[in-house]
Amino acid sequence: MPKVVDHETRREELVRTVWRIMARRGPAAVTMRQISAEAGYANGALKTYFAGKADLLEATYTHVFERTNERVERAAAGLSGLGALVAFCREVMPLDEERLDEERLDEARVVMAFWQEAAHDPARAAHNNRYMHQWRDSVAGWVAEARAAGDVTGHVDLASWVDALLTFLLGTQITAALDPTNVTPAHLERQLAAQLALVRVPAEAPVGAKAAADVAAPGNAGATASATTLGGAATPGGSAATGDGPVT
Amino acid sequence: MPKVVDHETRREELVRTVWRIMARRGPAAVTMRQISAEAGYANGALKTYFAGKADLLEATYTHVFERTNERVERAAAGLSGLGALVAFCREVMPLDEERLDEERLDEARVVMAFWQEAAHDPARAAHNNRYMHQWRDSVAGWVAEARAAGDVTGHVDLASWVDALLTFLLGTQITAALDPTNVTPAHLERQLAAQLALVRVPAEAPVGAKAAADVAAPGNAGATASATTLGGAATPGGSAATGDGPVT
Repeated sequence: MPKVVDHETRREELVRTVWRIMARRGPAAVTMRQISAEAGYANGALKTYFAGKADLLEATYTHVFERTNERVERAAAGLSGLGALVAFCREVMPLDEERLDEERLDEARVVMAFWQEAAHDPARAAHNNRYMHQWRDSVAGWVAEARAAGDVTGHVDLASWVDALLTFLLGTQITAALDPTNVTPAHLERQLAAQLALVRVPAEAPVGAKAAADVAAPGNAGATASATTLGGAATPGGSAATGDGPVT
Repeated sequence: MPKVVDHETRREELVRTVWRIMARRGPAAVTMRQISAEAGYANGALKTYFAGKADLLEATYTHVFERTNERVERAAAGLSGLGALVAFCREVMPLDEERLDEERLDEARVVMAFWQEAAHDPARAAHNNRYMHQWRDSVAGWVAEARAAGDVTGHVDLASWVDALLTFLLGTQITAALDPTNVTPAHLERQLAAQLALVRVPAEAPVGAKAAADVAAPGNAGATASATTLGGAATPGGSAATGDGPVT
């Protein structure tokens, strides 16, 4: 069915045109006339592919979410627990390598336009929330796996930590898009590592240190300390533990 | 100088009109005609107070940031360290009590419109980044105070944790504005508590447990354990430690 494939390809091309205009010049610059001009269509020819601007915007926003989900699926394939969680976070954050093509930053800009619309459009908000609840379920599942594997401490309200992590990931779209010079991919990676280090039980730590991590945590009455094994300092569990420097 | 006061009062009234239109119907609905109509001005009379729409928008966005900063200043007055940090976070998050007037949610919606513009407007982005860097300096200062007071563990990359906390706070504007039914003030408070619980050394904990919190943490080679005092479980340091429930 070459005709159908062609139709889908054209729709995707148009969605990418909308995306580019929106990311670089904002949603106000997205007009049917402008899209036709940039995509090389005669005025009115767009109607074959999209009923109107609303239809095109809907497809554009859906495309951004679906792209992210497809990347997550590829990156997390065969992983579970913390591994899957980290893979997910790294696909959601705008970590353009070298920032040469700014593809992820453009995604962030489009998502920001979407949020702004959703703030006063219940249908868009519902669209957003369906994706967010789906993400929350995935992340909660991976954290539960990590907890069961003993990779994550149980001393914190993990459900709230998961929500805060997702909220952080949304925030990275803003900070990276508005301050790309300072909020580099490496900077975002360090922030993610700091988030994860806080709940992560270091894999290389001696058993005693692992128990101590639970004991040190308030509210975990179930843990019992193996105090006598607490001699040496635990080895760093990841790049997040970059020491004890002052915050200035 | 009653005339000057009057001028300022009028400007502020107009800014609040823009704000309300933007929050409820989006920036596209903000036109000079619409503002005049809602504020009860004759067409053209706005020019006495604002040169044009760009000028009005600038004043509106500045107003939102300044309002937040004024609230923070009041809330953090006389506080330092963790106390000041928590006060700051609670003023930045959209924690409308009862959500009756949605004032904070409206702030969030206006900020989302601002971010969306800033994503493709370098002047707006620079405006945003000045405020963000100022906030980062304040937060880093409070965290350094908390660290010096022994209220915060030194086992994590605190500079990155601070950046992640601010990024989380930006994210709360989005989650609360788009999903106010689920992302209630109480829900946001729990997320904040989860963030803070992870770096907080519980105030009521015995000295040994405090040391253990440092030891359990990887990468803090400077800490020495007082292992023999590690008998009892530490008492919860705050409402954040809500136990060991499964994440589902």
